[in-house]
Amino acid sequence: MPRPTKPPLDEHLTQLAGQPVAAIDTPALVVDLDAMQRNLGRMAEFARKHGIRWRPHAKMHKCSEIARLQLEAGAVGVCVQKTAEAEAMAAGGVNDIYISNEVIAPQKLARVAQLACRLVDAGGRLTIAVDSREGVARLAQAMDDARRATGGSAVIDVFVEIDVGQGRCGVPPGRAALELVHEIRKHPALRFAGLQAYHGRAQHLRSPQERRDAIEQAARDAALTRKLIEDEGIQVALITGAGTGTMVCEAASGVYGELQAGSFLFMDADYARNERDPAQPQFEHALFVKTQVISAGARHAVCDAGHKSHAIDSGLPTVHSVDGDDPLEFGNGGDEHGILRPAAGGRVPEIGRILWLIPGHCDPTVNLHDHLVGVKGGLRTGTVDRILRVDARGALT
Amino acid sequence: MPRPTKPPLDEHLTQLAGQPVAAIDTPALVVDLDAMQRNLGRMAEFARKHGIRWRPHAKMHKCSEIARLQLEAGAVGVCVQKTAEAEAMAAGGVNDIYISNEVIAPQKLARVAQLACRLVDAGGRLTIAVDSREGVARLAQAMDDARRATGGSAVIDVFVEIDVGQGRCGVPPGRAALELVHEIRKHPALRFAGLQAYHGRAQHLRSPQERRDAIEQAARDAALTRKLIEDEGIQVALITGAGTGTMVCEAASGVYGELQAGSFLFMDADYARNERDPAQPQFEHALFVKTQVISAGARHAVCDAGHKSHAIDSGLPTVHSVDGDDPLEFGNGGDEHGILRPAAGGRVPEIGRILWLIPGHCDPTVNLHDHLVGVKGGLRTGTVDRILRVDARGALT
Repeated sequence: MPRPTKPPLDEHLTQLAGQPVAAIDTPALVVDLDAMQRNLGRMAEFARKHGIRWRPHAKMHKCSEIARLQLEAGAVGVCVQKTAEAEAMAAGGVNDIYISNEVIAPQKLARVAQLACRLVDAGGRLTIAVDSREGVARLAQAMDDARRATGGSAVIDVFVEIDVGQGRCGVPPGRAALELVHEIRKHPALRFAGLQAYHGRAQHLRSPQERRDAIEQAARDAALTRKLIEDEGIQVALITGAGTGTMVCEAASGVYGELQAGSFLFMDADYARNERDPAQPQFEHALFVKTQVISAGARHAVCDAGHKSHAIDSGLPTVHSVDGDDPLEFGNGGDEHGILRPAAGGRVPEIGRILWLIPGHCDPTVNLHDHLVGVKGGLRTGTVDRILRVDARGALT
Repeated sequence: MPRPTKPPLDEHLTQLAGQPVAAIDTPALVVDLDAMQRNLGRMAEFARKHGIRWRPHAKMHKCSEIARLQLEAGAVGVCVQKTAEAEAMAAGGVNDIYISNEVIAPQKLARVAQLACRLVDAGGRLTIAVDSREGVARLAQAMDDARRATGGSAVIDVFVEIDVGQGRCGVPPGRAALELVHEIRKHPALRFAGLQAYHGRAQHLRSPQERRDAIEQAARDAALTRKLIEDEGIQVALITGAGTGTMVCEAASGVYGELQAGSFLFMDADYARNERDPAQPQFEHALFVKTQVISAGARHAVCDAGHKSHAIDSGLPTVHSVDGDDPLEFGNGGDEHGILRPAAGGRVPEIGRILWLIPGHCDPTVNLHDHLVGVKGGLRTGTVDRILRVDARGALT
């Protein structure tokens, strides 16, 4: 099985631990570990209070060290989107992994099956989503091959993905899902585990009411599909879904049994644009790009962070005020630069000035970086606690 | 000096060489090496014909193996934007490197100075851009420190960056540039090398006339600045700039002596949207994301490439027709998915179908990948020739 091979960290990185925040060269992706830990605690408390499982999405942080912290805080396991992410998480000691996505390529399914056998042997579990007969048949073939090769009898858990409004993968709710359940149950190495019902589009509907309406409909679709399946005497053990934007709705639905929210841990500028549901824990920004001004003119300055440092698919970063600085507007300066313009009457920041950006979207921002710099004690006067390796960065296959 | 530490390639990657294109798992960033080589030849011929130097921008490919191919084809060296990119190129055997960007942080300038000393000792050269007195002073300090530490007398070449329309870094053309030249000449370890005059905004003006107008103005600004400096008896050895969109204009200007174009090697969907200047060599697309369909519904299919596989800052990828397939429109499906919709009357592609995407913007797309899969013999029936490591991927500092 291809396993992620990671080099040792550069010496200048390992030497950062214990140094003040000022020693972090720019641009760098910095995690406020205190804020992250508070977010983690809020999520754990929310799940406990609602009696619901949580399985945070590791596609966001791609870091097995963070995944282990989530497990310690009460998460039942992690979700991933890619086989290579699952391999990286397993290599990092996570043993309950759900690939919440369709896998079709036979060479990848061989890896999925090998990983399933390995995790099950070690007392863990691998789960995967399907949305086609072709997908079920190929997965079953791969599992049969892996079981034959290892002489084992491992079973892989399989969710049927239904499209509850995302308009991407998934069969329509209802009969199409039931048909796939019957397909799954034909194969001894596959175990029907429930329904995947994630509504991605609902996450960034700006008002709580719009989000509630969207998830009410999703929950109705999921419940109806469950009833159809259970009417045939087949148990639907779990309905899983939800993101940071809507998790309070799924938790209140009585239908969903597991939350997949991932972004709550770091938050981002796009989630901050949502009008907060009063039922939602108050998650803090914990992910920042540290950058500095490298050029300053009469009307604008330029910093050393562009969209090779932060993703811009969900909007540009915002400038986080740490020192009570004059407010700055961030403009797109291309791959390696950001343009900073002061508000009317404000000053252009001087060369060398340190700034902190809140990325527009945390997931693809983390995927640009090989490591995160973990800080305790705040961004202004804190200290580097440790370097967190983004094990699954670039894990695309 | 922090040096890039790269792990050995995964076994499944090294085993790809010699195998048919069909063996490449998805998503993968694939280079059509035949098309790349033709683009390289066209660029070399263009530069020869116009008697102009070319120093392609390695921020595009971030790959020292490709940089060496460019040097063999006649490039005088490479440009980079980041100190860490320069270190990666030097580690890969490139010994004439220009950091066409401002560097301000003292810890980075120490690395710049160390690299300059090392390259000069080995018969090479490091060049850098400045646009502030602060930048000149800090660079001089770093060079003094490095020379003292090594007992050497290396000199770093310095371009003064002027803003010829980009609206980002650079001093205004004219007196401000002259003042910086005087500053540079105060320091024995700095050697004034000429003017950096890159007009990024002009690269994607859609009509050749708009691009010609923009570069005529830039060339006038650069020539005026040169005259001001030369009137004081100081030679301006070189004016450097140009990208793939406008290189024919700079080459024809009689002002620019060096072209920095990088994207010509791979091309991308955004450059393909430019109306071609008849004087421009006909560069081909050489960079593709191989992807496959993992889900198919009644009206759309979903492939396994999203914006963790390709950058979308300059628009979505287009679907490249390899087999004469029905045309497909690519829609944004988020980080890990692409949505494929057939044109009116066309068929939705089936599960497992292989598709090839032309990325919207090559530079940040390459920066998402740890390696490129080099193919010869075409995308349909070709063979994997070799894996090219993206040495400077994520080299942000």
